[in-house]
Amino acid sequence: MFLQTIDILGTIAFAISGVSIAMDKKMDAFGVLIIAFVTSVGGGTVRDVLIGITPVSWMTDITYVYVIFGATIFTVIFRQKINYLRTSLFLFDTIGIGLYTVVGIERGLAAGLHPIICIALGTMTACFGGVIRDILCNEIPVIFRKEIYATACILGGITYFILGQFPIPDNIIFMAAGSIVITVRLVAVKFKISLPSLYKNEEPI
Amino acid sequence: MFLQTIDILGTIAFAISGVSIAMDKKMDAFGVLIIAFVTSVGGGTVRDVLIGITPVSWMTDITYVYVIFGATIFTVIFRQKINYLRTSLFLFDTIGIGLYTVVGIERGLAAGLHPIICIALGTMTACFGGVIRDILCNEIPVIFRKEIYATACILGGITYFILGQFPIPDNIIFMAAGSIVITVRLVAVKFKISLPSLYKNEEPI
Amino acid sequence: MFLQTIDILGTIAFAISGVSIAMDKKMDAFGVLIIAFVTSVGGGTVRDVLIGITPVSWMTDITYVYVIFGATIFTVIFRQKINYLRTSLFLFDTIGIGLYTVVGIERGLAAGLHPIICIALGTMTACFGGVIRDILCNEIPVIFRKEIYATACILGGITYFILGQFPIPDNIIFMAAGSIVITVRLVAVKFKISLPSLYKNEEPI
Repeated sequence: MFLQTIDILGTIAFAISGVSIAMDKKMDAFGVLIIAFVTSVGGGTVRDVLIGITPVSWMTDITYVYVIFGATIFTVIFRQKINYLRTSLFLFDTIGIGLYTVVGIERGLAAGLHPIICIALGTMTACFGGVIRDILCNEIPVIFRKEIYATACILGGITYFILGQFPIPDNIIFMAAGSIVITVRLVAVKFKISLPSLYKNEEPI
Repeated sequence: MFLQTIDILGTIAFAISGVSIAMDKKMDAFGVLIIAFVTSVGGGTVRDVLIGITPVSWMTDITYVYVIFGATIFTVIFRQKINYLRTSLFLFDTIGIGLYTVVGIERGLAAGLHPIICIALGTMTACFGGVIRDILCNEIPVIFRKEIYATACILGGITYFILGQFPIPDNIIFMAAGSIVITVRLVAVKFKISLPSLYKNEEPI
Repeated sequence: MFLQTIDILGTIAFAISGVSIAMDKKMDAFGVLIIAFVTSVGGGTVRDVLIGITPVSWMTDITYVYVIFGATIFTVIFRQKINYLRTSLFLFDTIGIGLYTVVGIERGLAAGLHPIICIALGTMTACFGGVIRDILCNEIPVIFRKEIYATACILGGITYFILGQFPIPDNIIFMAAGSIVITVRLVAVKFKISLPSLYKNEEPI
């Protein structure tokens, strides 16, 4: 129940971020809806397809469709006001990626995959919705360029497997790993930390 | 037999649209062929992968490969003349999306999915070939911006499930839903109707 | 053992090409790693998903992850020096696509698919990593525009099935088909052969 509430808050935050970007690109109503959808469920869809869980998760639980549809309509109507919610949305989004990361990891474990692959699946679940959104909007995915977003997921995933070495109850591990993702991202945004670009300019003479 | 003929006409129309766009992008022969292919079978492929029908449909029926190959060669050779066929192609394409929509819905039903998901699958089948084509050509997908294309599919899908409430034979429902898709698109193009962009300019002072 | 060595050399060459392009796009460390990954395993992943081999191959053999990770770090550190290896890398890459093509064909055969589909799968395995890399980097895929890359794979695939008509041992066919891919590409690059663009300029007056 608690987890499902978080999941839905995360879905809403992702959908709203999709709507905002799609509207900036002057898409029509259908385009906006699709981008909202893809941003919310894209990561989990890629994960499910790669592992072989089909039909993919959002197809078998209609709740997501309603939530995304509602969030899209709400955002379109109250677009001018949505800025006041910016902090809440950022929090939902951050909590959402924390949750998505751990869910992705557990799907990988259930499929019997190696821990490193599970961490990759958790990171995909949290991040690839945004990647597909950016591709559909004809941008280089933002997480490849400047946000310490994926890194937070990877650190959370590593935490998950380190704690798994000790006799700690599963749900504590779940919460701890998710919290690491959330904390790393909050700290990074607060202090404007980002990964270095690996590009070096030629030294000017 | 009748349905298969329509299916093949739709495949040809989609392939030709892919060839035209790929040639405008100055792609080489291989690029043109791939874009023709993706435009024709991309939507059904995404649908099959998401539901878990693998190997995907075009891999198990070689007819599509021959048809797309033939349409590509024909279009490349007669490119200058293809404009004379523009009206026929538009009709094939429109009939094609009507058919693809209903085929997608029925695949979803066969997998036991919710009607809303089935409508989404029908719309994907009809539209996502064009979406992948546009991504490969480095454009924001055209159906997200101006054509009342997906909307026609969605309305056809809704018709399908409304009629399904009544004791109407399956093939009548099939034809009716497909006809709604076709009619909506023809009317929209005729009267230049499109979905509104949700973007609002800031008021000028 | 021999084949696995080639496979790993090919993976390394693909990863390095991904790293170079991602760094040119000024991506951060995470972006560079993802692009390296996608370039290496993207083709095989698309193939596996379309056929229905899940979890996809790289998820069940952790070697690839280590190899790609190592190649990425190496390339980032020695970027200035990597140009000296350009010829070796081109050779690895070319040998890699020869191998990938034949591996793809054999996966298709194992799934009971038509020879033409198998050739398409072989070509995908060899080429689609680069296609996804280019899409993520917001470029029209280079193989659609100028390299005689896919054509080499297709010719190798045709060779595979022609030789299969004769009583020739499987591993000879494997080597022969791979060698055709390699030879065609080497010759094409040596003599700067590329497929013609199908685009014709309007005659200037």
